Amino acid sequence: YKTEANYVKFYNLYHSWVLRWMLYLFIAIDLALAMFEKPANPDMLWPIGATMSVEVLCLLFFLFRFCHAVYFSIPRIFWRDTKNILILAIIVLTFLDMICFLIWDNVAHDTNPIRWSRPLRPLFIINFSDGKQIRRAFRNIRRTVPEILNILVLFFLSIALFALLALKLFNKRNLTYPDGTPYFKEFFDSIWDLYVLVTTANNPDVMMPAYDESNWFAFFFIIYIIICLYIFMSIILAAIYYNYRNNLKNEIRASVYGKRKKLGEAFELLKVDKGGDQMVVTYQTWCRLLKKVIPKKSQAHIDLLMKILDTDMNHQIERKEFLQLADLLQLELSEVTDRMTFLERYIPTFYNSTISRGLKIGVRHKAFRYFFDFLIFVNAWFIGFDVDKADWFFLAMFTVEILLKLYTFGPKEFFVRFWNSFDFLVVFSAVIASAIEAAEGASREEFKTLDLLLVLRVLRLVKIFGSIQRFKVVLQTIINIGPSIFTYGGVIFVFYYIFAIIGMEIFSGKFDYYGYETEEGDESHFCGNPKLNGTAFFKFQYCNNNFNDFLKSLVILFELTVVNQWHVIASGFVAVTSKAARIYFFMFHLTCVVIVLNIFIAFILEAFILEYTIDKSGKLESCVETKIK
Amino acid sequence: YKTEANYVKFYNLYHSWVLRWMLYLFIAIDLALAMFEKPANPDMLWPIGATMSVEVLCLLFFLFRFCHAVYFSIPRIFWRDTKNILILAIIVLTFLDMICFLIWDNVAHDTNPIRWSRPLRPLFIINFSDGKQIRRAFRNIRRTVPEILNILVLFFLSIALFALLALKLFNKRNLTYPDGTPYFKEFFDSIWDLYVLVTTANNPDVMMPAYDESNWFAFFFIIYIIICLYIFMSIILAAIYYNYRNNLKNEIRASVYGKRKKLGEAFELLKVDKGGDQMVVTYQTWCRLLKKVIPKKSQAHIDLLMKILDTDMNHQIERKEFLQLADLLQLELSEVTDRMTFLERYIPTFYNSTISRGLKIGVRHKAFRYFFDFLIFVNAWFIGFDVDKADWFFLAMFTVEILLKLYTFGPKEFFVRFWNSFDFLVVFSAVIASAIEAAEGASREEFKTLDLLLVLRVLRLVKIFGSIQRFKVVLQTIINIGPSIFTYGGVIFVFYYIFAIIGMEIFSGKFDYYGYETEEGDESHFCGNPKLNGTAFFKFQYCNNNFNDFLKSLVILFELTVVNQWHVIASGFVAVTSKAARIYFFMFHLTCVVIVLNIFIAFILEAFILEYTIDKSGKLESCVETKIK
Repeated sequence: YKTEANYVKFYNLYHSWVLRWMLYLFIAIDLALAMFEKPANPDMLWPIGATMSVEVLCLLFFLFRFCHAVYFSIPRIFWRDTKNILILAIIVLTFLDMICFLIWDNVAHDTNPIRWSRPLRPLFIINFSDGKQIRRAFRNIRRTVPEILNILVLFFLSIALFALLALKLFNKRNLTYPDGTPYFKEFFDSIWDLYVLVTTANNPDVMMPAYDESNWFAFFFIIYIIICLYIFMSIILAAIYYNYRNNLKNEIRASVYGKRKKLGEAFELLKVDKGGDQMVVTYQTWCRLLKKVIPKKSQAHIDLLMKILDTDMNHQIERKEFLQLADLLQLELSEVTDRMTFLERYIPTFYNSTISRGLKIGVRHKAFRYFFDFLIFVNAWFIGFDVDKADWFFLAMFTVEILLKLYTFGPKEFFVRFWNSFDFLVVFSAVIASAIEAAEGASREEFKTLDLLLVLRVLRLVKIFGSIQRFKVVLQTIINIGPSIFTYGGVIFVFYYIFAIIGMEIFSGKFDYYGYETEEGDESHFCGNPKLNGTAFFKFQYCNNNFNDFLKSLVILFELTVVNQWHVIASGFVAVTSKAARIYFFMFHLTCVVIVLNIFIAFILEAFILEYTIDKSGKLESCVETKIK
Repeated sequence: YKTEANYVKFYNLYHSWVLRWMLYLFIAIDLALAMFEKPANPDMLWPIGATMSVEVLCLLFFLFRFCHAVYFSIPRIFWRDTKNILILAIIVLTFLDMICFLIWDNVAHDTNPIRWSRPLRPLFIINFSDGKQIRRAFRNIRRTVPEILNILVLFFLSIALFALLALKLFNKRNLTYPDGTPYFKEFFDSIWDLYVLVTTANNPDVMMPAYDESNWFAFFFIIYIIICLYIFMSIILAAIYYNYRNNLKNEIRASVYGKRKKLGEAFELLKVDKGGDQMVVTYQTWCRLLKKVIPKKSQAHIDLLMKILDTDMNHQIERKEFLQLADLLQLELSEVTDRMTFLERYIPTFYNSTISRGLKIGVRHKAFRYFFDFLIFVNAWFIGFDVDKADWFFLAMFTVEILLKLYTFGPKEFFVRFWNSFDFLVVFSAVIASAIEAAEGASREEFKTLDLLLVLRVLRLVKIFGSIQRFKVVLQTIINIGPSIFTYGGVIFVFYYIFAIIGMEIFSGKFDYYGYETEEGDESHFCGNPKLNGTAFFKFQYCNNNFNDFLKSLVILFELTVVNQWHVIASGFVAVTSKAARIYFFMFHLTCVVIVLNIFIAFILEAFILEYTIDKSGKLESCVETKIK
C-alpha cells in the first residue's frame, strides 16, 4: 500500500468498522435476493424491477469499495492480485447480464429469460479482502484437488471396470428390480448404479435381484464395496488429510513469515539508535504506539505488556523482542482491579451483613450445585414422560438459582462463564414462553409458534453435561473449534448457493407439494406432474423436496449432502426431465461430499488432535505464562 | 521359556511348520463347523453327532497344543498371560457346553437346546500365539475404547436430548409416516429414529412428515445432523485416530525395546572377550549362527550380511552392531548371480542369433508396450459394447505378447514383476475359459459357472492402470498396505462370527426366501411369515437377507456394516420378533461400524500417510543402502 499520510487516512477509512459492516450488509442483501427472485415462494416474490434495483445498489457499493481500494493501493501490486480482478470481473459481468436480461425480457418474455450471472454472487464473500479465513479454505481446496486427482481418476476407472464386469455377469440373465426396471442392462446405467452403491445409498437393493438369483453373486458386490468404498474412499480421505496438513503447515509458515516481515518493517520505522549497533524502541515510542493500537486499554495494561516483552529488563525493546508483539496482543489479559460487584458498591452494609454472607457461602458450596443438577435431572424425567404439572415449580426454582448466583458473584463474573450465560438465556426464554402460554390460556390451538419457545426449556438439560468434568473437556474442544467450523459453513454455503441457483434454473416448477390425498384428474395429482406416477420418489412422498424456491433448494442440497436416498431424489428429477439430470446430482456429490466434506473431516481431525495435544502438554501461552509467574 | 536343551527341542517342535499349519487347519475346521450345524442350508446340514465329534477332535488338538506349550514354558510367566488362561477357559467351557447340550437334548429335545459356547470359537484365532497381528489390533481396540467412552456417552446423551425435543415438537401434531406408523410418539422410538438418522439411513424420510407440515421444521433436523453426525462422528473418528496413533507408537516402542533386549541377551551368550573392555562376536561364531538362522542362504550371502553389519570393518561385530541384526534379516537381498535365462543356457546359439536379438530389442522397446496398451483399450471398448466377435483375436494377441515377453526376459525376471504375473494369470484363465466355451459349442444354457471365468477377461483392463506411472504409486500403496488390511479382515471376521452365531440362535427360521410370486394361503406367502405383510422389509424384497445359515448371516452382517437400509433390515426382524431385536442391531452397529470400522479408517489414514511420507523422502533402508553403495 502507498504509505503517504493522505493514503493512510483512506486506508484507515477503508478498514473502519462502519464501511466494513456496510460491506457485510450489502453482501448479505445481494445474496438474500435469491429468496425474492423468480422462482420463489409466491408470498416472497418481488417484481423484477425491485430485485434488480436492489442488486444495482449492491453492485454500486461494491464498485465504490473497489475504487476506494484502488485509490490507496500500489497499482502494480493491486492488479496482480487475482481476487481484485475477480471482483471487477464479477461486477462487470453482472451489469452485462442485467442489460442482456432486460433486452431479452422485453423482446421475448415467453422464452423464460435467464439471469446467468447469479451463481457468481457468492464469490463476493470470498474475494473481498475481509473473508480471509474462507479464502484460505478455498485455497486449501484448490491446492488439494490436483493432488487427489490421480486417485479420483483411478477410482472412476475402477467403477467403470466393475460396471463392465457387472454388465457381463448380469446382462443375459434378464433380472429386474422389484419395481420392474431393468437390472444392469446398459453400460451407463451400470456405472450410475455402482457409483450410487459407493455412496452406499442403494445398498442392499442393488444386490438383491442378483442375490436372489444365486447366493454367490453376493461376492461380486462385497468385493466391489470393499475395494471401492472401504479402501478407495479411505484413501481419498487419507490423501485429502495428508495434503490438508501439508497445506496448513505451509500456510502457517507463510503467515508467520509475513507477520515477522511486517513487524520487522515496523521496527525499522520506530527504532532509535542506542549507541553501538543496538537499535531499540524506547519506552516513550512504545507508549505512543500502543495508545494507537489499543486505545481502550489503561496505561497500566500497556506497561504490563512492555514488561512481558522486555525479557532483559532494560526498559527498551530490541528487535527480537519486538517481533513477538503480535502474539502478545492476541492474548486476553483481564484486569483484576474492580472485583466489587454492583451491590457491594452501593449497599455495602446489607451486602456484607451476616445473613448475606451466610447466603453467599451457601451458594458457593458444592451442595448448592449438586442440588440443582439433581433438579435438572428430575426435570428431564418429567419432560420425558410429558408431565407438565410441575413445570412452574421447576421454572421458579431455576430462576431463583440464577438470581442467587447473580447476587453472589455479581453480573460481571456471572456472565463471563459460558454455562451461566447459557443457563440465563434458556431459563429466561422459558419464563417468557411460559408467561405467554399462561396468558393465552386454554386457546391451545395457536401453539404453532409458541411451543418452539417452550421446547427451549429442554435445553436446560445441556447444563448437566457442562457440570461433569470429563464432558467439559470434549465440549470445550467443540466450542474451541466452533469458529473454524463456521468458516467451513461459509465454504459449504458458497457451493450450496451456486448449486441452488443452477438447480432452480433447471428444475424449478417441474412439480410441487400439494399433499398426497389428491384425486385423479386433479391438476395437483402426482404432485402436479403425471410423470412422477409410479416412481420411487413419489412413493416415498418426497415431493416437498424441490427447487421451487431458494430455501427449499438449500434444504434439498443438505439432504443430498447427507447422501442417503440421494439417488431416489435424483431419480425424481430424472423422471420429470431426462437422464442428463444425473450429471447435476453427480457433480454436487463429487464436489460437496467427496471433496468439501472430506476436507471438513480432515480439518476436524487436525483441529481435534491439536486440541488434545495442547490439552495434554499445555505448551501454548507458556512463554507468556512463565514470564508472568 | 525354559532354556535347557531338552526344552529347546520341544520349543522348536512347537514352532515347526507342520504343527503350526495343523493348528491353523484345526482352527479353520472348528470355525467352519458353523456352516454344517443347525441352522444351516439343508444341503449342508450334518447330524449333531458328526459336528460334535469333529469339534471334540479340534478341541483335543488345541488341548494337546496347550499342554505342549505348558511343558517348555516357565509356569510363573505362562499362567500370568491372559491369552493362555483364555484358551484353557474356552476349551473347558466348550466341553462343559457340549455335555450340557447332550443332556438337554436327550431330556427335552423339543425345547430347542442351545449350544451357547459357539460364539467363543473365534477367540482361538486371537489367543493362540501365532495370531500376533490380530491380537495387536484387538489390544488397540481395547485400549482405544475407554478413551472414547466420554465422547460416546456425550453423544448418546445428545441423542436423548434431541429425542426429547422431537417428542415435544411433534408429539401433539399427530403426524404419521407414509405407511401410517406414528411419528415421534414414544420416547424410545424417538431415540431409535434419531440414532438411525445419525447413521443417515433414514434421511430424509424421517424429516419429510414434519417438513410437509411446516418447512421450518427442517431446521430441527439440519441442526441435529450437523451436531450429531458431522461434528460428533468426526470427533469420534478423530479421537480414535489420535488414540490409535498413540497406541501404535507405544506398541512399536515396546516391540523395538523387546527386540533389542532379546538381541542383547543373545549377544551376551555369543560374545568373546577381545581384550580390553571390548566384547565381540567373532567371524566364526557369526557363520555358525547364521547357518542356523538362515540355512538356505549361501556363504557369500552370510559374508555380505557380516560386511553390512560390521561398520568399522574390523571383522568382528560389536554389541551395537549386533543389535541391528533383526532389521537386517528382514531385508530381501536378491542374489544377482544367474541372470542367464533357461533358453540362453540350453540353446545359446539360437537365442543369441541376430534374428532373436532383434526380436528381443523389439520387445524391450517402448512401442511394444504402447501397442499392447492400446490393444487392451480397444478390447475394453469391444467388451463394453458387447461385441464378442473379435475375442479370439484379442486373446491370441495377448497370448503372443506374454510368450514374447517370457522369451525375452526369461521366466524368473518375468514373474518377479507383479503386473506380469497378474497378466499371465488373467490371460491364461481367459484362454482356458474360452476353450471350454468353444468346446461347449452352442449349448449356451450352461453358462452359469463358465461366464464367471469369462468375466475374468475384463480384468485385463486393470493392466492399463498398472502401466501409467501416476497410478502405479497409488496402486503400490494399496498393495503395500494389503497384508495389514487382511489383519483387519481377521478382526472383522471375529466380530462377524460372534454376531452371526448369536443372530442365528435368535432369528433363524423366522422367515425364508421363496420368491415373491407366491399366492395367498400358501405356506410360503409373505416369505413364510404373515407378520411381514405390509412391512417395508417385505416391500423392498429383502427376504433373502436372513439368518437361516452361516453364510447368509455373514452377508446380512456385511450389509449392516455398509449401514444403508440397516433400519429396514432391523425392522423386518423386529416385525417377526419384538422391538427388543433392535438391541442386537444397535450393538452390531456400535461395535462393528462406529468402533471397528473407524479404527480401520484410522489405520488406513496412518498407513497411507506413512507410505506417502516414505515415498517422498525415502528414508527406509537408507542405512543399508548407504552401506551398500
